[in-house]
Amino acid sequence: MRRIEAVDFYYLSMPEVTTEGDGSQDALLVRVMAGGLEGWGECEASPLVSIAAFVCPMSHGACRPVGASVLGQKLEEPEDIYRIAAQIELDSMDLLQAPHTWSGVEIALWDLLGKAYQEPVWKLLGYRESFRKLPYASQLFGDTPAQTYQQANRAKEQNFRAVKFGWGPVGRSNLKTDVEHFSAAREGLGKDCLLLVDVGQIFGNDVAAAVARIPALEQTGAVWLEEPFHTSALDAYASLSRQSKVKLAGGEGAHNFFMAQHLIDLGHVGYIQVDCGRIGGIGPAKRVADYAVSKGVTFVNHTFTSHLALSASLQPFAGLRSHEICEYPFAPKLLAREITSNHLERDREGYVSVPDALGLGIVVDTKAASRYLVEVEIKAKGKVLFKSGDLA
Amino acid sequence: MRRIEAVDFYYLSMPEVTTEGDGSQDALLVRVMAGGLEGWGECEASPLVSIAAFVCPMSHGACRPVGASVLGQKLEEPEDIYRIAAQIELDSMDLLQAPHTWSGVEIALWDLLGKAYQEPVWKLLGYRESFRKLPYASQLFGDTPAQTYQQANRAKEQNFRAVKFGWGPVGRSNLKTDVEHFSAAREGLGKDCLLLVDVGQIFGNDVAAAVARIPALEQTGAVWLEEPFHTSALDAYASLSRQSKVKLAGGEGAHNFFMAQHLIDLGHVGYIQVDCGRIGGIGPAKRVADYAVSKGVTFVNHTFTSHLALSASLQPFAGLRSHEICEYPFAPKLLAREITSNHLERDREGYVSVPDALGLGIVVDTKAASRYLVEVEIKAKGKVLFKSGDLA
Repeated sequence: MRRIEAVDFYYLSMPEVTTEGDGSQDALLVRVMAGGLEGWGECEASPLVSIAAFVCPMSHGACRPVGASVLGQKLEEPEDIYRIAAQIELDSMDLLQAPHTWSGVEIALWDLLGKAYQEPVWKLLGYRESFRKLPYASQLFGDTPAQTYQQANRAKEQNFRAVKFGWGPVGRSNLKTDVEHFSAAREGLGKDCLLLVDVGQIFGNDVAAAVARIPALEQTGAVWLEEPFHTSALDAYASLSRQSKVKLAGGEGAHNFFMAQHLIDLGHVGYIQVDCGRIGGIGPAKRVADYAVSKGVTFVNHTFTSHLALSASLQPFAGLRSHEICEYPFAPKLLAREITSNHLERDREGYVSVPDALGLGIVVDTKAASRYLVEVEIKAKGKVLFKSGDLA
Repeated sequence: MRRIEAVDFYYLSMPEVTTEGDGSQDALLVRVMAGGLEGWGECEASPLVSIAAFVCPMSHGACRPVGASVLGQKLEEPEDIYRIAAQIELDSMDLLQAPHTWSGVEIALWDLLGKAYQEPVWKLLGYRESFRKLPYASQLFGDTPAQTYQQANRAKEQNFRAVKFGWGPVGRSNLKTDVEHFSAAREGLGKDCLLLVDVGQIFGNDVAAAVARIPALEQTGAVWLEEPFHTSALDAYASLSRQSKVKLAGGEGAHNFFMAQHLIDLGHVGYIQVDCGRIGGIGPAKRVADYAVSKGVTFVNHTFTSHLALSASLQPFAGLRSHEICEYPFAPKLLAREITSNHLERDREGYVSVPDALGLGIVVDTKAASRYLVEVEIKAKGKVLFKSGDLA
């Protein structure tokens, strides 16, 4: 019987990490070994804390380290992954970081199972066919409207048919400046390119501040307004959605299925965006995709890191033809580009295809990744709980 | 101007930690120093992970360590605490563990401000008067109905007028055994003692399994059924509440105000129980208490650890006369008893009073706590990010 023999974490980081809203500045790679096979996954954000949640001493029965539910477990079929996930939900109930840690491990388990079944992960999820996706270039607003214009222009020149601008100054200064950014983005993109806007929860739960931006977003033809509020501010989402012709998008902050479900049913988003590296991996993301279909809501991945994370995030909706748009890191840091040997490049029409290869179809370049490896050591209760190992 | 000069974490643990559902087996004490004053707080669960979330390297602008938003900040008045909380909500948005870490720090900041104002914390929260609370002995179900009976008896003999049984075998075997446990509890308590039942999310979102237990709970006169489901399974809460004369209770898993609000408005709980050590501290707990009052729902603290945590958890509803029941650790591990020099003992009628003293009114016994201190060292990126210091 195939059992999970080892789970190794590799914390990678750019030499310098800045306060810009760019999630590609570090990464937490996860390698799982079972029955002579290996699988790779990636956790989103805060590598040190996610490692700690895997190795920490138990606090009590409902606050056990994630590792306790994973190591040694049977791994023969998808059902095993769901079983381990359910175990973690109970046994690590009081360990808030657990879903983030588990996400990267879960992705690696699917990758490994795909290799065992000799199938791409999307087939293991029940899809018979995969459809190419229309990637939108995901980037930050410029510091000034002029910079936003230039960035829009650059994305258009690189043949993107959809572009998302996010974070940066929007919502932090005044309405007039925000409107100038929206207009500059539209001008730079030209009239045919899809424009998406992401404000990174800047309005907290202040509906009026968000409502004030809607006319300008409508006028610039924005497809969606993403994350106006805190992920759990469902009333604010509901109120804004009633007052806005521009559809709302959100969900990256969901760390379980229920949170995404509530954004759909109670927040009335038109686009549900979950991050496989945070919601608990590919399984819960697929469940969200199924639910979105049943509710007439469009599923979109949230991905701002490597192409390993990108492949993982495309699997849950690979077979949904009409859910076409996908997030695509436009200008990630070198780290995020270099840690995989292959990439999901756009075809001539500007689309990307989910790999028709074993598992996630992405090869980790361990030698390149080694250059970004962060040395970590965690000791507690007289034991070395974690020490970073070699990658290459 | 008073500024936050230091935040120190002390990870305490019993020599042996078991899988029983007893949260008093370890603790994370937090000491804050500012302007010659000190304040103490406590984080609930997984000390190592919560420490890591305070000291971890930044991943990007929305994934900064909690420490970055705390150290050096102005601390003159309550508004400063709310300001820091809002900063963490934005700057540590992608760090899932952040609310747990912040909880203990926030509690310490209130304790410190109370000392600065020479007032108990509940006065800083706006209450003019505090009302004594009726503590319920919080303990686990026995392994067998006979053991449950004995434990009920023991609590009655110790003059508790309300007793909660939780976790253990209930929901894990069959309906018949569960019913026997409920009956044994009632028998052991006699007819006048309040009986509360906590099943620790055992039913996930399986409403039928919970509904099956309701007649027996009604028959034994249970005041509430606590945490039948996952904190975010709001539909399941709503469905069960429609089918049950026994009121539902829940909320310990809430790690922000919104989650508690949804349990009230959408899950229709009759009792909202938040843990100050998890929801982000005393501020958000007070906001939940205010909201509960406005909705006719009863606020109850969740506390299973020390009397420092207990005092913190009573402050948010100290001034609410009719919200009388409070959770009270009945048989905590020695650690949880010994780390404070004073305790909130029950008076002759079995009530406890919120301290009418400066801050939280609890003195940490640093010498006793030292005996439980866990040595921790966290190194990353060539730096020692955390090393446990001396307490005494």
